[in-house]
Amino acid sequence: MQTITSVAELRRILEKCRSSDQQIGFVPTMGYLHDGHLALIAASQAKCDVTVVSIFVNPTQFGPNEDLSRYPRDFLRDEELCRGQGVAILFAPDAHEAYPSDFETFVEPGDLAKPLCGAFRPGHFRGVATIVCKLFNMVQPDIAFFGQKDFQQCAIVRRMVVDLNLPIEIVIVPTVREQDGLAMSSRNRYLSDEERQQALAISRGLSAALDEFRSGERHVEKLIAVAKKHLKAVDRLEYLELVDSDTLKSADSPLRRPSALCAAAYVGSTRLIDNVILTLPTR
Amino acid sequence: MQTITSVAELRRILEKCRSSDQQIGFVPTMGYLHDGHLALIAASQAKCDVTVVSIFVNPTQFGPNEDLSRYPRDFLRDEELCRGQGVAILFAPDAHEAYPSDFETFVEPGDLAKPLCGAFRPGHFRGVATIVCKLFNMVQPDIAFFGQKDFQQCAIVRRMVVDLNLPIEIVIVPTVREQDGLAMSSRNRYLSDEERQQALAISRGLSAALDEFRSGERHVEKLIAVAKKHLKAVDRLEYLELVDSDTLKSADSPLRRPSALCAAAYVGSTRLIDNVILTLPTR
Repeated sequence: MQTITSVAELRRILEKCRSSDQQIGFVPTMGYLHDGHLALIAASQAKCDVTVVSIFVNPTQFGPNEDLSRYPRDFLRDEELCRGQGVAILFAPDAHEAYPSDFETFVEPGDLAKPLCGAFRPGHFRGVATIVCKLFNMVQPDIAFFGQKDFQQCAIVRRMVVDLNLPIEIVIVPTVREQDGLAMSSRNRYLSDEERQQALAISRGLSAALDEFRSGERHVEKLIAVAKKHLKAVDRLEYLELVDSDTLKSADSPLRRPSALCAAAYVGSTRLIDNVILTLPTR
Repeated sequence: MQTITSVAELRRILEKCRSSDQQIGFVPTMGYLHDGHLALIAASQAKCDVTVVSIFVNPTQFGPNEDLSRYPRDFLRDEELCRGQGVAILFAPDAHEAYPSDFETFVEPGDLAKPLCGAFRPGHFRGVATIVCKLFNMVQPDIAFFGQKDFQQCAIVRRMVVDLNLPIEIVIVPTVREQDGLAMSSRNRYLSDEERQQALAISRGLSAALDEFRSGERHVEKLIAVAKKHLKAVDRLEYLELVDSDTLKSADSPLRRPSALCAAAYVGSTRLIDNVILTLPTR
């Protein structure tokens, strides 16, 4: 595995892969890798000849009062994990390599960035879309892999790829969970033992609503109520919404289109997100 | 020459060029080609193996009260001109191919889009940056060619390429002028014979200032005053500014850095732009 920090060197190496017709898979991350990331890497390894993993804690997607400075980092451990997964290239640019001093061009998503997390984290998805676009142009992968846990991010990235004609296939990989159901997240490490137990309310609430849905419940308010019973246990529920999977607009009862039940909640000072996808049975 | 309207087909054809290591040159235009465009094509032909010309009158760069609907079009003539220049591919997507119905992701330029034309055409450079980014991703050229007449556009496109890490070289080609000095523009065809004479005030003013500069004048206000004398003849001077070539901020006296004197003026109901570059002698 090669660890690379410069865009120029990255391009030089990938040029060789491309000219020998190798499929390039790409997994963009902010590091502090967990099993969710490893599932993305495994998906890339299964579909592509070469996997590039990027580690970059992107400042433009953090708000002024968010956790940029304390975001967990452990580069040597990440490097070891990538090596163990057979990753070909670990790309870890520093902030200056990614954002030169007079940087000023952003990729601005539209309505998809307005609800859910977008309503509480102004500018977040502008930062996400911009860095993902930049990384796509640096790596020029054939396929890029994203985790379903970041449901709104997935929708925005897919839309960006279509809207800006990026010649890249996007693959969404199901959320990986701890044995007790908690969605894997680098931010889980912020949780105390007690908070860790409390945080289970999120996955339990969503999972209970999913069960109801699978039992035939199609009424939006009822499904939300089922989840809410559990979610009372968090310190602050930021949102709990059932949205259309494509438009991210509030879903209508009875559910007739692919939808997702999405939540963001604070446990102590830690903000966690999770979602379940409600797929209607095909006839 | 092949005339192509679909992105998928364009990619299929260009894939072949790329795999045989041909350099791809790209000239994006809004059609109604004139000698300025032909100079861009010639520059591409000189540097690249394959030249792609696009013709697309981009709706997102026109304001609600601008000339989108009456923008001059003559596709058959353009096609003939491109064929005569040895262009390999003429790419002419329709509006729906370029902008699917749920399009919503824009490329947003920063401070470079604020002065000059940006101050009078809100949203214009957002539309320009977005379509240029899209076309770049459709064509994936090695080199793209732009005319110096659109001075601010050139600065914004160059900045976008750096900021979004687009793997493309940008070449700026000097403005081509009519024999009497009027900068070539598709919009010149809006001018009546009388207006055509009146429009000369723009290039004459800029050229007079350039002469003064070459004679040693380095004072911003004095250079502007020289140009203004001629520019009184237009119906409405929108702006006349001497700016730093890189930042587009107002230049300071005495001039010490590469600068440009830029003007936008109405002759009748036609808005025309032009500029001259003030290059300091190297020692």
